[in-house]
Amino acid sequence: MKTLRVDLGERSYPIYIGSGLLEQDNLLGSHINRQEALVVTNDTIAPLYLERLCRQLTIKKLDTVILPDGEQFKTLETLNLIYDKLLTARHSRGTTLIALGGGVIGDMTGYAAASYQRGVNFIQVPTTLLAQVDSSVGGKTGVNHPLGKNMIGAFYQPVAVVADIQTLMTLPVREYRSGIAEVVKYGLIADPDFYGWLKQRVERINGRDEQTLTEMVERSCFNKAAIVARDERESDIRAILNLGHTFGHAIETTEQYKGLLHGEAVAVGMLMAAELSCQLGWLARRDVEELSALLETLGLPVSVPAVMTPEKFMAAMAVDKKVADGVIRLVLLESIGKAVVSADYASNELQKVLDSFCSSRK
Amino acid sequence: MKTLRVDLGERSYPIYIGSGLLEQDNLLGSHINRQEALVVTNDTIAPLYLERLCRQLTIKKLDTVILPDGEQFKTLETLNLIYDKLLTARHSRGTTLIALGGGVIGDMTGYAAASYQRGVNFIQVPTTLLAQVDSSVGGKTGVNHPLGKNMIGAFYQPVAVVADIQTLMTLPVREYRSGIAEVVKYGLIADPDFYGWLKQRVERINGRDEQTLTEMVERSCFNKAAIVARDERESDIRAILNLGHTFGHAIETTEQYKGLLHGEAVAVGMLMAAELSCQLGWLARRDVEELSALLETLGLPVSVPAVMTPEKFMAAMAVDKKVADGVIRLVLLESIGKAVVSADYASNELQKVLDSFCSSRK
Repeated sequence: MKTLRVDLGERSYPIYIGSGLLEQDNLLGSHINRQEALVVTNDTIAPLYLERLCRQLTIKKLDTVILPDGEQFKTLETLNLIYDKLLTARHSRGTTLIALGGGVIGDMTGYAAASYQRGVNFIQVPTTLLAQVDSSVGGKTGVNHPLGKNMIGAFYQPVAVVADIQTLMTLPVREYRSGIAEVVKYGLIADPDFYGWLKQRVERINGRDEQTLTEMVERSCFNKAAIVARDERESDIRAILNLGHTFGHAIETTEQYKGLLHGEAVAVGMLMAAELSCQLGWLARRDVEELSALLETLGLPVSVPAVMTPEKFMAAMAVDKKVADGVIRLVLLESIGKAVVSADYASNELQKVLDSFCSSRK
Repeated sequence: MKTLRVDLGERSYPIYIGSGLLEQDNLLGSHINRQEALVVTNDTIAPLYLERLCRQLTIKKLDTVILPDGEQFKTLETLNLIYDKLLTARHSRGTTLIALGGGVIGDMTGYAAASYQRGVNFIQVPTTLLAQVDSSVGGKTGVNHPLGKNMIGAFYQPVAVVADIQTLMTLPVREYRSGIAEVVKYGLIADPDFYGWLKQRVERINGRDEQTLTEMVERSCFNKAAIVARDERESDIRAILNLGHTFGHAIETTEQYKGLLHGEAVAVGMLMAAELSCQLGWLARRDVEELSALLETLGLPVSVPAVMTPEKFMAAMAVDKKVADGVIRLVLLESIGKAVVSADYASNELQKVLDSFCSSRK
């Protein structure tokens, strides 16, 4: 088992990464400080891991709530099911919520923990690659609103993250690949060595080699933790974690979360950001082509869905959280391994990228 | 104008208290850092003060949302109306919410600010006495759940509080008195001098003398700010601010917020806490009688509503936030001017107080 630490002063917490951690005696239990917990999961994960997790928790009061699976349920209405359970089962301020699942479960459970009785403890037990390398670390929690993704939420840190690599073995292939997009992101924004490491291990990654995955998750979490520690509330540097996300969110919103998965949308979005960075003369044409090839060999999309038009992109991007004073700030790449947040591009350059991707859409 | 400061490190903020502050040039404006704001108010306050407040704000983007008035609307559904407005009017992360109204508006607006895009600025402009002396200071925000009051929320500090004493002149008499209950509370829990000051000024208080009110609000806010500065997240000492609230919440919940006003319920609750403190030998019988007489001359109730029974009290109190490991912790009085949080009473003593109040209910 590897242990990383997210360094946030009194809100610091450990990330445990390894195989079989769900069954490891007293790992979860050591982070529950009263004899009270609620496990939140969904109907896909529950039959796979809920019993295994509950079996090793020997506390007085252990409740579970099983939510419907899917991004379309990441809403205030579903959140209310967690509150209902907490209140009908009379959980006190001393309770601990345990998020067992992917990013949707983690975001909703974290936000329920942030808001129940103005804040209770919670533990992230991410069971998807996307959640293990990204959403479970850093304290972003929340739900979607019909008018925008993640528009309601809080910065709220867990007391621990437990990433069991074995849970990745049961992941459907598209979901697995979706997580890989965020892994590639760390290489692009902050870690050129890791980017090189990934390019050399495409086969082992696609084959889900346990050793490779453990190192890959660890290096991803290391990058994420370092960025979050420098800027917990995203006042500046943390925003580079959103590489590809402004474009990606526009796709997800337009498709009403029924088309590309989050990581798939981010993959296309990263390529669009790389293309714009190339237009600005920052990236070489070859860098963009290599990225496109890497994403493809990892099974990720490199073109936008048929439904997208430049107008739809612009409409959706205008409500993005990174808009300040009406200017869309984008995460761009100065080079492979170095991202910047910038509004310093001519609007016709953005337009050209949107036009070019939308004219070759699938 | 008087200015107090709530001392919370980087989250410190000023409280301005005085007459005519709503119209004071640039007082509100100086706390809006981008050219964007949303004023949240209700249909009672809007016709009285909304135009006056908006007139002096010369910013580019100023929106308003008018909610229905009443504690029964302090819900997730009403909160959603604020989110809807923010999103349809495309407010960015740089926006400022302005809460113009009483405690319900302040709590909901504060919670909307805490959760919109994971946190934007907000300013409290309390227009009721209860809000000026209590709910607008200290950063408790949230909404009710059908199964409990204030069960969903956040600790989230405003960037400023603007208390215009003139707004108290239009307050209905019951609402005004309801605020007085919280004023008396500060004397009881922390400030025996202030308690004596109040006893000598009942007439001027009931007559809403502007000078007296300004000093009364200032001394109340001073006490609240000092306690909040010592314990922002209510890990210990801050809980004494809940004197009378566990009993009071039980009444409000049982009456489904349709009977006694919050401060009225707290008034009875404080008397119940005083009675229990007397049973424990801490307060003299005369202290309890004097408190009862003071509350009565201030027009506040000193007996519980007819609907209450000891069983209903116990059922409602069991889900209160101050319950730890099944034991109901109560705020009690060691003496007039000194409160403690305690679970150190025999359950039959609590039972006796409930029996006695419920047998003489009105």
